[in-house]
Amino acid sequence: MAAHVIDFLTLGNNFGTPEMRSIWSEENRFRKQVEVEIALAKAEGELGVIPLEAANKIAQLVKVEALNFNELAEEAVRLRHTFMATINALQRQSGDAGEYIHYGATTQDIVDTATVLQLKEAFEIVLRDTRLVAQELKTLAKKYQYLPMVGRTHGMQALPTTFGFKLAVWLDEFVRHLQRLNEIRDRVLVGNISGAICTYASFGKKGPEVEARALALLGLNAPNIGWQAARDRFSEYASVVALISGTLGKIANEFYNLMRTEINEIEEPFSSGKIGSSTMPHKRNPAALEGMASLTSPIFKSVALIHESMRVEHERDAMSWRAEWIALPEMNIYLSAQLQIGLSILRGMKVNAEQMLKNLELQNGLLLSEKVMFELGKRLGKQSSHSLVYECSMKAFEEARSFKDVLLENSIIKKEFNESEITEWLIPQNYLGSAPDKVDIVIRYAELSGLLD
Amino acid sequence: MAAHVIDFLTLGNNFGTPEMRSIWSEENRFRKQVEVEIALAKAEGELGVIPLEAANKIAQLVKVEALNFNELAEEAVRLRHTFMATINALQRQSGDAGEYIHYGATTQDIVDTATVLQLKEAFEIVLRDTRLVAQELKTLAKKYQYLPMVGRTHGMQALPTTFGFKLAVWLDEFVRHLQRLNEIRDRVLVGNISGAICTYASFGKKGPEVEARALALLGLNAPNIGWQAARDRFSEYASVVALISGTLGKIANEFYNLMRTEINEIEEPFSSGKIGSSTMPHKRNPAALEGMASLTSPIFKSVALIHESMRVEHERDAMSWRAEWIALPEMNIYLSAQLQIGLSILRGMKVNAEQMLKNLELQNGLLLSEKVMFELGKRLGKQSSHSLVYECSMKAFEEARSFKDVLLENSIIKKEFNESEITEWLIPQNYLGSAPDKVDIVIRYAELSGLLD
Amino acid sequence: MAAHVIDFLTLGNNFGTPEMRSIWSEENRFRKQVEVEIALAKAEGELGVIPLEAANKIAQLVKVEALNFNELAEEAVRLRHTFMATINALQRQSGDAGEYIHYGATTQDIVDTATVLQLKEAFEIVLRDTRLVAQELKTLAKKYQYLPMVGRTHGMQALPTTFGFKLAVWLDEFVRHLQRLNEIRDRVLVGNISGAICTYASFGKKGPEVEARALALLGLNAPNIGWQAARDRFSEYASVVALISGTLGKIANEFYNLMRTEINEIEEPFSSGKIGSSTMPHKRNPAALEGMASLTSPIFKSVALIHESMRVEHERDAMSWRAEWIALPEMNIYLSAQLQIGLSILRGMKVNAEQMLKNLELQNGLLLSEKVMFELGKRLGKQSSHSLVYECSMKAFEEARSFKDVLLENSIIKKEFNESEITEWLIPQNYLGSAPDKVDIVIRYAELSGLLD
Amino acid sequence: MAAHVIDFLTLGNNFGTPEMRSIWSEENRFRKQVEVEIALAKAEGELGVIPLEAANKIAQLVKVEALNFNELAEEAVRLRHTFMATINALQRQSGDAGEYIHYGATTQDIVDTATVLQLKEAFEIVLRDTRLVAQELKTLAKKYQYLPMVGRTHGMQALPTTFGFKLAVWLDEFVRHLQRLNEIRDRVLVGNISGAICTYASFGKKGPEVEARALALLGLNAPNIGWQAARDRFSEYASVVALISGTLGKIANEFYNLMRTEINEIEEPFSSGKIGSSTMPHKRNPAALEGMASLTSPIFKSVALIHESMRVEHERDAMSWRAEWIALPEMNIYLSAQLQIGLSILRGMKVNAEQMLKNLELQNGLLLSEKVMFELGKRLGKQSSHSLVYECSMKAFEEARSFKDVLLENSIIKKEFNESEITEWLIPQNYLGSAPDKVDIVIRYAELSGLLD
Repeated sequence: MAAHVIDFLTLGNNFGTPEMRSIWSEENRFRKQVEVEIALAKAEGELGVIPLEAANKIAQLVKVEALNFNELAEEAVRLRHTFMATINALQRQSGDAGEYIHYGATTQDIVDTATVLQLKEAFEIVLRDTRLVAQELKTLAKKYQYLPMVGRTHGMQALPTTFGFKLAVWLDEFVRHLQRLNEIRDRVLVGNISGAICTYASFGKKGPEVEARALALLGLNAPNIGWQAARDRFSEYASVVALISGTLGKIANEFYNLMRTEINEIEEPFSSGKIGSSTMPHKRNPAALEGMASLTSPIFKSVALIHESMRVEHERDAMSWRAEWIALPEMNIYLSAQLQIGLSILRGMKVNAEQMLKNLELQNGLLLSEKVMFELGKRLGKQSSHSLVYECSMKAFEEARSFKDVLLENSIIKKEFNESEITEWLIPQNYLGSAPDKVDIVIRYAELSGLLD
Repeated sequence: MAAHVIDFLTLGNNFGTPEMRSIWSEENRFRKQVEVEIALAKAEGELGVIPLEAANKIAQLVKVEALNFNELAEEAVRLRHTFMATINALQRQSGDAGEYIHYGATTQDIVDTATVLQLKEAFEIVLRDTRLVAQELKTLAKKYQYLPMVGRTHGMQALPTTFGFKLAVWLDEFVRHLQRLNEIRDRVLVGNISGAICTYASFGKKGPEVEARALALLGLNAPNIGWQAARDRFSEYASVVALISGTLGKIANEFYNLMRTEINEIEEPFSSGKIGSSTMPHKRNPAALEGMASLTSPIFKSVALIHESMRVEHERDAMSWRAEWIALPEMNIYLSAQLQIGLSILRGMKVNAEQMLKNLELQNGLLLSEKVMFELGKRLGKQSSHSLVYECSMKAFEEARSFKDVLLENSIIKKEFNESEITEWLIPQNYLGSAPDKVDIVIRYAELSGLLD
Repeated sequence: MAAHVIDFLTLGNNFGTPEMRSIWSEENRFRKQVEVEIALAKAEGELGVIPLEAANKIAQLVKVEALNFNELAEEAVRLRHTFMATINALQRQSGDAGEYIHYGATTQDIVDTATVLQLKEAFEIVLRDTRLVAQELKTLAKKYQYLPMVGRTHGMQALPTTFGFKLAVWLDEFVRHLQRLNEIRDRVLVGNISGAICTYASFGKKGPEVEARALALLGLNAPNIGWQAARDRFSEYASVVALISGTLGKIANEFYNLMRTEINEIEEPFSSGKIGSSTMPHKRNPAALEGMASLTSPIFKSVALIHESMRVEHERDAMSWRAEWIALPEMNIYLSAQLQIGLSILRGMKVNAEQMLKNLELQNGLLLSEKVMFELGKRLGKQSSHSLVYECSMKAFEEARSFKDVLLENSIIKKEFNESEITEWLIPQNYLGSAPDKVDIVIRYAELSGLLD
Repeated sequence: MAAHVIDFLTLGNNFGTPEMRSIWSEENRFRKQVEVEIALAKAEGELGVIPLEAANKIAQLVKVEALNFNELAEEAVRLRHTFMATINALQRQSGDAGEYIHYGATTQDIVDTATVLQLKEAFEIVLRDTRLVAQELKTLAKKYQYLPMVGRTHGMQALPTTFGFKLAVWLDEFVRHLQRLNEIRDRVLVGNISGAICTYASFGKKGPEVEARALALLGLNAPNIGWQAARDRFSEYASVVALISGTLGKIANEFYNLMRTEINEIEEPFSSGKIGSSTMPHKRNPAALEGMASLTSPIFKSVALIHESMRVEHERDAMSWRAEWIALPEMNIYLSAQLQIGLSILRGMKVNAEQMLKNLELQNGLLLSEKVMFELGKRLGKQSSHSLVYECSMKAFEEARSFKDVLLENSIIKKEFNESEITEWLIPQNYLGSAPDKVDIVIRYAELSGLLD
């Protein structure tokens, strides 16, 4: 049985989706490698680098389904080479056209281009799910545009805001992620078939044409120059993965905190039968949120790992290469789960509006200290007002009294202001600033961008 | 005296340029913060949020030069707040307009926007030096377009290439870096002045206008919505820094290896008086290259650190924030040195063309085994030829003999081919493939992009 | 002015203590290097490798105070060597004994051994402050041994515990840190003076004796064999730093969460005049806690960076070396602040026992669901009881009712149990298990270890 | 098919050994969890916490082989809990004793203790293979104690050393690794069975006894206090893994460099049939060395990831926990391959003594510049000699002439010294210093330590 949790029957779905796992499965890796060999043969046949007939035969006979992975593994040990056994097997499948398989190519041509084919499939999923999360955030931001709740800084209650505003901040971030994915796409999804050290020497003069044609058949872009020694594209993709995962991790952490027993403003989707604890029957844990939050750290590590593969030596080396074989699948698989868990949470979570209102009252008025300061400041000057309100706030806090009462018993304040003014200032809903307006602005921008469609 | 090597008198220039250090200096940090406070006051004056007269006074009276940093430090301890002391000092400078300093703003508005102002200055330098490196790579790629040298894979001699080709791979990578810098620029250089939790409540209805005007005065873009709780822009910039530094580290490592005593194909700039070792007078060390190479790892760590600051809590927190204060200056400072050292190496290095030629002969013909295989393959079939050439290669290697001699004594080969054919195949210059052509293609693309101008 | 926040006048103390900064200051670095040169000369004089008289002169005349760092910096640029200028300056100070300065040594001998001298000073501080934190945790664990509070898992209220128990978990962890520091000490504080590639060739036959004597003079251990190419000792030290910082970061994060407005069980030290916010006068932020928590991530990055320096090439290289110059000071400086902030928080924080009691009641009985399950289970079987209590818990939660009431209206329960039993089960103080006992066990172990004395 | 390369049929053995993979397999994870449940039941039976008869039944009936992982996976989704399904299945296996399975325990008790059981198995393998590598290094260091070769610093030829000396540096490092493994063993292999928040409340008064007895049955140490909220032990183990892997990565990188075509001093084990390249038949690549070298970076990332799990929240959380499920197996699996590949390389590599001698002559005498400097210095003074030899060295280098000739034509030198002296100085074998002696010292220390037995 599998040894990495990604491949566990019982836990794997917490760390990746079946859809994304299948893209990075050993089988699909071979499938893509075979597709590259076929496309190469076809292009070479068309351009006369190999006999057209041989190319047709290869395209017809070569089948990933006929590969015996256990045998390949054994032969690889004997040859001490990770790909030669595959070439040999494909050669055998091709009959007398076998001499023309892999013609002019080096192992890394095939492996890298196949990896980009896998990445292309992964890219579509990531783009799709990033868009779905953005759409969901848009819907929710609009829905909760005016729902007042406590805004917190440094973990402490700060000022009133709206739940929709919080969501709109994330929506705007997701729109930027979509922009990024669009910008990098053509630069990242680029194949490479240029021979042992990217000079095409083995293809004769037609090397660049062969590459261009084969990559066109595969639906990939062709590079200006071979990139066996320039791995920045994978790291660039990884960077955007890091950014998306950073936001998802933040959202999960935020909801985890808002779901705390003592805050209780949201709850992740609960269905009857969900068990929080094997020993504490009352527990309704943020299990999905923790799962979602937990994936950002491993993604960050995979991203950091792939960054190191940029430091390839000479025309290529296998040290930096192998880091990609680990890191690129990992980051995509983890992200697939994080996006899907995120989606299901956004779609099913419970928003506890009543508790949000209660929490706005928890500090007995102190939440509006800024408002009071500005109002007092209009007559007393802002900095003087800061001192005065600071004193009253500290007093109200330490004596656990109503802020209004403390304000009203202050001689300076009571001389200048009356109770109804102060009462008015202390209503959270009156001090939301431009929060709801900003929700509209963000949504409008998202819509105009066309990125959510 | 300073405790971080970035600030060392004797070593600091190995880890950053004076120009970039000055951008991230404590003094410039304060300067930018003061600029933000002034721009805020002006915008508020124009829009009637504070008296125009007060705004003018603030703009006139407030001076970073008059700040006493030691006093600020002491007051900060007393207030247990890192910025309040500055506000107090600016208030004192402003005379009776002091009440209107920092009006409606929160500390993080000022600190973040000032940081973006610093980043803008840093961005220009990074862009300039990235462009300069690209230009230098272009010049060198053209100059050495046809200079033959050994291409190496897995640390071993593989096939002939040209030095210009190697440089063109890097040039193409640097063109991508310039594209990236251009794409992210407008998204990254965005300020934020929106009050305690980004709702503008403290500014009244005119908050968004105040922000837009103040940021325009500062030359920064305005956000759709406040980003105190969305730090992806810094991480995006960091990602591009990582990519640039990855390439620079690779180049440095490559030259370090090519400069090895046993390879000796290039030498970093040497000037009389340069000392390699305090005890071995003959040493001509790749000191500049090691310095350049050594900076990628710390940059990667700073980038990884700033990624973590994406996971901000609630409307903001100071835990993630402080990571930025460390990481953002670090990565810019290290990169500034890496770019400048890189430039000076590219400009002054010695290319040892003669040794490159010698190294092409080092394996006594084996370097062209692929060429021989393809030529034999034309009559014997490629896979059969691979086996045959493999055997001859292993024999030549193990017996340390000339590849040609071994080939010629093979009964199959000598039946089908003659010595002059084989001699021809073994000339490295005849097997450069499209290497020189690709140099032109890359340069043309770079020129058409307009990014190098 | 300085460009790294560690060296900022106004912010530096948040990132390091003056005491630790001075150890890693440029000045102290030179001081230690000079000490090593003197010890080397003395040892060589004693053993007849250089004239005794010359050694005495060097010991007498060489002075770090007489070095002009600006001049050294300029000369270093000219020589393109970071240490040769220092040797030249010391030679000039030594008069006619100057020929014997640095005799037989290589730059790295001096720089590495000086670094270990700095590390020794840092080690003592880290050990001292780790012990002080442990002592404080012991005092507090005893003080709050019986103070009941809510235990939380997955961010949700789980079961009652005591505050002393929480502290005892950390105390036990700190005792392990002290064990680790003691175990690694002799292995880490090892100098190295063995010449250009650690063979002592330049010292003649007496090399190992010279090294042993010089290191003895410096108070360092001597290695079995030179470690210019074996940097594991620094990484080992770094690993323990990571562990200590991991615990400190956890403690800070824990208190940050317990200080949340809605939980409010502890408060970091507050003194009148402390400002939480420049715009919200009521804010009492966990500023010290955030500062403390924020230092773990940069320490982790510095530790990861120094790990990479283990991969030194050949007999030594400067790429891996420079990472140490960055990372080793950083991790010590950050940790010094983290330990000192931790200490001051532990000594001055306010424990809100009353609120702890209130929070125990917040779930209206559900906190004791496990207890109820076990009691019911005695007659109904554990798993059946789990189902039953699960149902009642969900009902109580969803209808926001008292757990006791829901239990009592259940037909199975009310048949088997009476109200007074259930009331008894629901008293948190009755279900603390062995929490207070464990506090004693941990303290006894700590005391017997002798590590806290 | 599997999606993580660790689990690939065709590539998995490059990233882990079958032996180590089986320890961390999903099946063994369940096996250990079942063992923990059984041990818990037995201990509870013995101590009267549950009926002895029930305990016996559980021990007899519960079988990991009877678990259906696919069914468990499905039920886990329904329950949204990763372990409850297992408990239910074990309960069903236990018949009427089922009520007593998992009695008093929380999920994390079982999962954590099972993980430590897996870790114990992994620990033995790591210890065994670390010892085997050390033994091999000892054998080789002795064998090559006197084999002269070039020592290199900064990638450049520096001075003569011996191959045995290089190996002895690594042997000494491995002895330290063995010390570390021994020191941490008892502290790391500690189980934990203490209930929901480690207070043992659910076990009644006998909790600590139950835990001690169950852990004794499992062969694990018992903690002073529960460590659900103190994860330093895993990070400590990880730290030592990082150190071991750092050395292995260094060794692999060193041999990779020494195997370069142009250096050619060693070759990794080659067997007929080994293929270097699919297109270049002559290639004899350092494939095993690259594989070995490539594993350090992913291990460093896993180590960094598990460090973050130290920052657990409250009494426990699942965010930090899941990082362990990823990182702990990864680091052990990668390390297992790295150790085994290392062993096979050390055992089978070819040492090219002849080429080592040739490389000693490559610089035409410059390799001994230090020796010359010290000899000249005896009459001319060391610093003056440094200048003189520096000039002659630079001249010899730039004019590509014999160092001896250049020295001999210098007027100062030829006045004071004769050719036969200089010839003598330039013999590399005469300037090995204490290199061979140090080999003996290191081996003696290793033997006395008893750690290699």
